[in-house]
Amino acid sequence: MATSSPYDILFQPVKVGPHTARNRFYQVPHCCGLGHVRPQAHAAMRAMKAEGGWAVVSTEEAEIHPTSDLAPYAEQRIWDEHDIPALKLMTDAVHAKGALAAIELVHNGAHAYNHLSRAPLFAPSDMTMESTYPKQARAMSLADIQAFRRWHRSAARRAMEAGFDIIYVYAGHRMSLAQHFLLPEYNQRTDEYGGKLENRVRLLRQLLEDAKEEVGGRCAVALRFAVDEVMGSDGMEWHKEGRQIVQMLKDLPDIWDVNISNWSNDSATSRLQRHEGYQTPYIEFVKQETNKPVVAVGRITSADYMVSLVKDGIVDFIGAARPSIADPFIPNKIRDNRIDEIRECIGCNICVSSDGLGVPIRCTQNPTMGEEWRRGWHPEHIEAKQSDQQALVVGGGPAGMECAMQLARRGYQVTLAEATKELGGRGLAEAKLAGLGAWKRVVDYRLSDMQTRANLDIYYDSQLTSEQIIELGIDNVFIATGTHWRRDGVGRSKRVAMHNDGSLPLFTPEDVMANQLPSQQQMPHVLIYDDDLAYLGGVIAQQLVDQGYRVSLATSATMVSPFTDITLEQATIQRQLLQSGAAVILSHTIHGTVDKQVQLSCNYTGKVQSIAADGLLLVTERIRHSQLYDELLAMPAHGLRHVELIGDAATPGLIADAVYSGHMAARNFEKPAAEVEQQIFRRELISLKPMI
Amino acid sequence: MATSSPYDILFQPVKVGPHTARNRFYQVPHCCGLGHVRPQAHAAMRAMKAEGGWAVVSTEEAEIHPTSDLAPYAEQRIWDEHDIPALKLMTDAVHAKGALAAIELVHNGAHAYNHLSRAPLFAPSDMTMESTYPKQARAMSLADIQAFRRWHRSAARRAMEAGFDIIYVYAGHRMSLAQHFLLPEYNQRTDEYGGKLENRVRLLRQLLEDAKEEVGGRCAVALRFAVDEVMGSDGMEWHKEGRQIVQMLKDLPDIWDVNISNWSNDSATSRLQRHEGYQTPYIEFVKQETNKPVVAVGRITSADYMVSLVKDGIVDFIGAARPSIADPFIPNKIRDNRIDEIRECIGCNICVSSDGLGVPIRCTQNPTMGEEWRRGWHPEHIEAKQSDQQALVVGGGPAGMECAMQLARRGYQVTLAEATKELGGRGLAEAKLAGLGAWKRVVDYRLSDMQTRANLDIYYDSQLTSEQIIELGIDNVFIATGTHWRRDGVGRSKRVAMHNDGSLPLFTPEDVMANQLPSQQQMPHVLIYDDDLAYLGGVIAQQLVDQGYRVSLATSATMVSPFTDITLEQATIQRQLLQSGAAVILSHTIHGTVDKQVQLSCNYTGKVQSIAADGLLLVTERIRHSQLYDELLAMPAHGLRHVELIGDAATPGLIADAVYSGHMAARNFEKPAAEVEQQIFRRELISLKPMI
Repeated sequence: MATSSPYDILFQPVKVGPHTARNRFYQVPHCCGLGHVRPQAHAAMRAMKAEGGWAVVSTEEAEIHPTSDLAPYAEQRIWDEHDIPALKLMTDAVHAKGALAAIELVHNGAHAYNHLSRAPLFAPSDMTMESTYPKQARAMSLADIQAFRRWHRSAARRAMEAGFDIIYVYAGHRMSLAQHFLLPEYNQRTDEYGGKLENRVRLLRQLLEDAKEEVGGRCAVALRFAVDEVMGSDGMEWHKEGRQIVQMLKDLPDIWDVNISNWSNDSATSRLQRHEGYQTPYIEFVKQETNKPVVAVGRITSADYMVSLVKDGIVDFIGAARPSIADPFIPNKIRDNRIDEIRECIGCNICVSSDGLGVPIRCTQNPTMGEEWRRGWHPEHIEAKQSDQQALVVGGGPAGMECAMQLARRGYQVTLAEATKELGGRGLAEAKLAGLGAWKRVVDYRLSDMQTRANLDIYYDSQLTSEQIIELGIDNVFIATGTHWRRDGVGRSKRVAMHNDGSLPLFTPEDVMANQLPSQQQMPHVLIYDDDLAYLGGVIAQQLVDQGYRVSLATSATMVSPFTDITLEQATIQRQLLQSGAAVILSHTIHGTVDKQVQLSCNYTGKVQSIAADGLLLVTERIRHSQLYDELLAMPAHGLRHVELIGDAATPGLIADAVYSGHMAARNFEKPAAEVEQQIFRRELISLKPMI
Repeated sequence: MATSSPYDILFQPVKVGPHTARNRFYQVPHCCGLGHVRPQAHAAMRAMKAEGGWAVVSTEEAEIHPTSDLAPYAEQRIWDEHDIPALKLMTDAVHAKGALAAIELVHNGAHAYNHLSRAPLFAPSDMTMESTYPKQARAMSLADIQAFRRWHRSAARRAMEAGFDIIYVYAGHRMSLAQHFLLPEYNQRTDEYGGKLENRVRLLRQLLEDAKEEVGGRCAVALRFAVDEVMGSDGMEWHKEGRQIVQMLKDLPDIWDVNISNWSNDSATSRLQRHEGYQTPYIEFVKQETNKPVVAVGRITSADYMVSLVKDGIVDFIGAARPSIADPFIPNKIRDNRIDEIRECIGCNICVSSDGLGVPIRCTQNPTMGEEWRRGWHPEHIEAKQSDQQALVVGGGPAGMECAMQLARRGYQVTLAEATKELGGRGLAEAKLAGLGAWKRVVDYRLSDMQTRANLDIYYDSQLTSEQIIELGIDNVFIATGTHWRRDGVGRSKRVAMHNDGSLPLFTPEDVMANQLPSQQQMPHVLIYDDDLAYLGGVIAQQLVDQGYRVSLATSATMVSPFTDITLEQATIQRQLLQSGAAVILSHTIHGTVDKQVQLSCNYTGKVQSIAADGLLLVTERIRHSQLYDELLAMPAHGLRHVELIGDAATPGLIADAVYSGHMAARNFEKPAAEVEQQIFRRELISLKPMI
């Protein structure tokens, strides 16, 4: 920061209550599948954000009481004093790297499960719990509300004891009691906590007042507030009650953290919200109504946009969840004018999906995310080479690129041989599909890095045979030759090839990516059969509809693209597809093709239905390209020192898995086997010391 | 056992490998949502079975390696030596009560997730993983198979070190690699592990041989083997390859634990398999083929049936999972001629559902299940009364019955006032519905117990007003007044009343239970709208179809009765309903009634469809009967010492929740508040000591 930069404004310190944030980069609360279940991993992950320059680093939501129990999901927990030591791991680690630590207290009301605690569920008014389980929450009595305020207040005290600098009151994502009281949909009370807005805001105001009183000026009290539900007049709107609430509470919180509700709107993927800053239109009013600092989000990764947000008086802090996951070092990179080095979030929500699975966070762009503790991985550092060995990477898709790049970073002399004219493989091909354009950042980031490295040679148009590899004389070979999609109907629902009478042309996702489908005139009606159940079936269906094909999407699942439920996209995907005129056939398994018809059988009854079509596109399962690897291994005296199959060719999965596989291969190259082995066994164990 | 009893044969000791089981009662491996995530609770639960007289008590499946990782689910884990202390908690506790301890080693192959470990998934041949996630398992190389055998062998050694007496090789439920290799559906290998049966059995034989060699006669090695997949010739059949495998392995295992696959067949509910012993026809051949003892299951709760199974030479051990959950003391009760006191399993699979949720086990019949450690509850003992206080229980449904029974067991003088002519409430009413007959055991068990208690007075036809309660002069009042179903369409999907033009008669589940629907002639077509999403919508639909109504079942979910997925019933329920001619409308929310039509809107597009019907039956949400409680609280000087709302009237839920609520109220009566509070906070915490 010695010389002046256009980004200096982002590095101004900002007061938050009694504390001063060192700059304007603020990691807002976000889930991570670590939480109280993996406190050591959690502390290490949050500390990495602090090391990367964020001024404020927050936890995920922290359950304040057993009546708000989300087991088995790995959020935070601050039920009583027994949770303080685990939380202190994080605050100590974050403080050591110069950041402020924030905690998001929560009572989830009817969004909680209470399956572990078996406690009653609470809501403003009687209602069924949110998850698909036959249990109802009961309307809180005034005594319940008093108890809740007590729990919240004592959680604030414990948070202070655990070393947090900023303590959140949380009214967002339709996930917290404090927000449920605000919304007439949840709150039909007739007492002083229901009815007119002033009454519905009462509890939130009391929670803020209680927290401020409890911390007595030693911590800042933040309010995370969803100003709009993106439901039109069926929900809260920013220009109506959203704004009024900001006006009513004005300077009561020490900082406003504002966003939109529900979670799928707040954390919209790039597929559904193409551009960064998509929340700005909703939240830009807030700063006009308060004298306290404001933080907001919207998948913001561009430094110039960040500057404009601050200069235009829209926010004081650049909030981030996902961009800080893809690159924990965004602040330092901007500070040091290394903007090209930023690993930009692609907006795929694979990070989000891990929360839904109850497992540690992962990231497509940043394979070290969630591995800071277990494997000791650092997103910016990698161990220098152990020797002067050379490496050959065969295949320049996501796994091959990551592997080659990281080996080169380690200092090895690396040769990357790619069969086609472009690097990127699947990462490039999928990014050409409708809505997935931002995914190209996976390729762009790596290509841009690789081009700076003198010890990395890239060869295009270089499909290698096993003999050629031996001839090359490079002793260490990483095979990242990918997969192709099956064309025979085999997949999770059907382990034998479908009947195929040859009457219909068959296609796979590769044909779509290669633009090799017959025209809409030649093939008016395409039936897509999706047994993969991830995103591709739905993406391709939407693209073909948009291109003017008549599309029927048949799937073995009960909904379109069920995997996208945990990336917060499913309902929108199915809605868009239906609204654009596609036919959807659910819960059916492919049987085969007969006389220009696709036969599908009902998963429940076995009843077969036949659908006339002009082409059948199969999205079922992939075949690994392991032939080259198998050939090398089978050569009795190949003389190679190290041969490793990586990425999809080893285990087909998400692009995130391929990048991770390539990264791991580079990290583990020439590492003692025992050390590699130890990492996979490293885990957090239950204490056998009874707590009470 | 001094005098001879018809059940003596059940108490003969049986040799299992080097050990002797004290009798023929054998708790086979079953999941419980405790596992390695809650080892202290797990040990206490298993020890309770041992205390109740079981001769063998097993764990759930225990992951042997990070490549078989089921996080976040709470199975057992024996990855390395760090898991031994937690497992030793169980073996010590089980041994202290005189039982043998067994452990079920597992590698789940493509049934695993590996989301925590991020390791590759393994399978005999390449295939998509089982859960809805875009990842494929890779065909194991010969080196992979060698590694797997090493892992399994060393897990057997660790199990021995942890004190287990019986070590399982597990080939069942379609959940384990050892079984996947057996099945052509999974195994298309062309090497010595694939093809003819002898080859497909090779790995299982090797695992058994390895384990036997490793334990060197110090432990028994059990084989859990599914003899039939209940798929006809599409899967393994007991009289074909099932039998051949038993013949091939014959006396290699020290004990055969045989069942049917998949899990939903093995753990069939009483709704889908009415009678105990439903697996006997599949497994009765096994003893003819081996000289080693045989254990089998089938929701067996009748002592006479147990005796016949042994006398007829079908099994050596009476296996049990669910019956041992509903009553851990079955063996002792049979031994002591207290058969009337057995709390018979109702076959509802609420126990199973907790595994699917990743939370501690619960049981409809036995509210202490899963609470042995946290709350210190014992299924057969309850603290004696603290004083000579008397108690009034208002309402004789599941909560009221349990509360009254347990208060009486404690020694209090109890009055139970029931508004109708029968005890049982919802427990009785639901048990009259098609397929739920066995649920009546909830009422029967309690009624039978209550009738033996002199300090418990039951009054029928006694609907009490608040004034009458005061007049009664009983100082402690437990209100268990239940709920009724809403008739306005309000539920999880719709928080405001539906439009109702009065053109259609409206019904709720209570009308069905009370046999108050118009006849099939008066109301040929009933539309059932299910927004409850548990079991009732599907149960009632099937019953009305069977009674000759034309039935349309509309639901807000993407499948019929989605909750029943975690009770292992969903697919069968939807199949039966469709096959019996019901129409099913999925993913729709009720809009209202207009001109004898039901209007439903698509959850994705909002598009409204109208369906002509003669009646509308709403299964949406329940209204709590809290009026009596509210009135008592509102009486300024009611003079009562204790007034408590329990069961559905407090928090509507499952019958299991109502029983639990009644039980807890009885346990906590006159207990110091601090002690009650402490129990809900008691939990297992992560150790903060790094393991490596």
